Amino acid sequence: MGRLPDGRDLIAAIVAFCRQAGVHTAAFSVMGTVSEYTLGAFDPDQQVHVTENENAPFDIAACRGNVSRKAGALFVRAYVCLTDIHGRVVAGRLFSPTRLREAEIDMLEITAPVFDRRYDSSLGLDLWPQRPPTGVANGEEPRTAGSNESK
Amino acid sequence: MGRLPDGRDLIAAIVAFCRQAGVHTAAFSVMGTVSEYTLGAFDPDQQVHVTENENAPFDIAACRGNVSRKAGALFVRAYVCLTDIHGRVVAGRLFSPTRLREAEIDMLEITAPVFDRRYDSSLGLDLWPQRPPTGVANGEEPRTAGSNESK
Amino acid sequence: MGRLPDGRDLIAAIVAFCRQAGVHTAAFSVMGTVSEYTLGAFDPDQQVHVTENENAPFDIAACRGNVSRKAGALFVRAYVCLTDIHGRVVAGRLFSPTRLREAEIDMLEITAPVFDRRYDSSLGLDLWPQRPPTGVANGEEPRTAGSNESK
Repeated sequence: MGRLPDGRDLIAAIVAFCRQAGVHTAAFSVMGTVSEYTLGAFDPDQQVHVTENENAPFDIAACRGNVSRKAGALFVRAYVCLTDIHGRVVAGRLFSPTRLREAEIDMLEITAPVFDRRYDSSLGLDLWPQRPPTGVANGEEPRTAGSNESK
Repeated sequence: MGRLPDGRDLIAAIVAFCRQAGVHTAAFSVMGTVSEYTLGAFDPDQQVHVTENENAPFDIAACRGNVSRKAGALFVRAYVCLTDIHGRVVAGRLFSPTRLREAEIDMLEITAPVFDRRYDSSLGLDLWPQRPPTGVANGEEPRTAGSNESK
Repeated sequence: MGRLPDGRDLIAAIVAFCRQAGVHTAAFSVMGTVSEYTLGAFDPDQQVHVTENENAPFDIAACRGNVSRKAGALFVRAYVCLTDIHGRVVAGRLFSPTRLREAEIDMLEITAPVFDRRYDSSLGLDLWPQRPPTGVANGEEPRTAGSNESK
């Protein structure tokens, strides 16, 4: 659990948080406020995300995602619900730029083997391979990815 | 953490995921895309869920729920926020059929004693008994319910 | 994981849940139904939350937050998405009074050092200090804050 840097792009901030904590696989939630968002919804016909960008203050009413790897790099897939003082609610997949005013994250590291995303051309998305769950392996206790900790 | 089977009903997929991982009590989040949804909102006057079904592509902007038992079987209670390329946001309690295009789940197993749901006729819902928290028992470390793990 | 007391204010119920379980730092999710809500969105110009209160039945489609300390007391920061039988979706930061009909919580305790909130006059919010993550400290396994457990 910790605070993300003010003014950063949300995806970049999550990637930096993982790098600093040495985390490569994790599930997380974020809450806070943003000054700009870019959200998308998937169009299965065109196999693209239709995105919307807006420069305005919003509260992050919900943001949940995971971190895994794609082509050797950390990859964030996350979805967000936003709201503003006019009662508007917008939601969708998180894209950049989404600029934080301030935000707090809680993250649970998964110490399982690496999850690798690859482009699935039939679904049009970067996905993990489909395999049945193998049960809960020994020694795979979750760790909390820490921040704001006085050593 | 893992990927749920493409094309499955979401509740059925979560139950199957738990069975395969040997999990009977858990909290989880799901994200992904659906081709059909059934969501409900509770009407306290009639003590029924008013449901809405729609066959159309939506992104799962948020989905959080838990798994416990009811009458000896695994029971999923979950809530969902969906959005589409037209900017619509719909939300409510998850019902079947809700058909996945593809989805990813992260689940935290609760190794506490079984939570049993029973119908509460005054509230009109299947609920756990109300008891004060008993603190954190020893040996109740959470386990991550694994998937996509190369043994 | 556990059930919160029927009819209570949601923030008060979370604080009581933490006190009873001896938890001072945690991340949590709540789902259930409410009979009244108070939600706010932050106005960065005035540095206040613009709140909306309504007495009506809603389902909690998403609620995620954390518990930390402010001035020695437990402090809840949480965000909520609500929906009703008319298909309305409202979202925002959780304030009191928000009255539960019934609700279920899952909570993950963070056993890191105390997170202390202080008022940040430039951002207008009660926030934790900004520090880089220090990695995952030893012995900081998460505990589940238990409830509904037969001793």
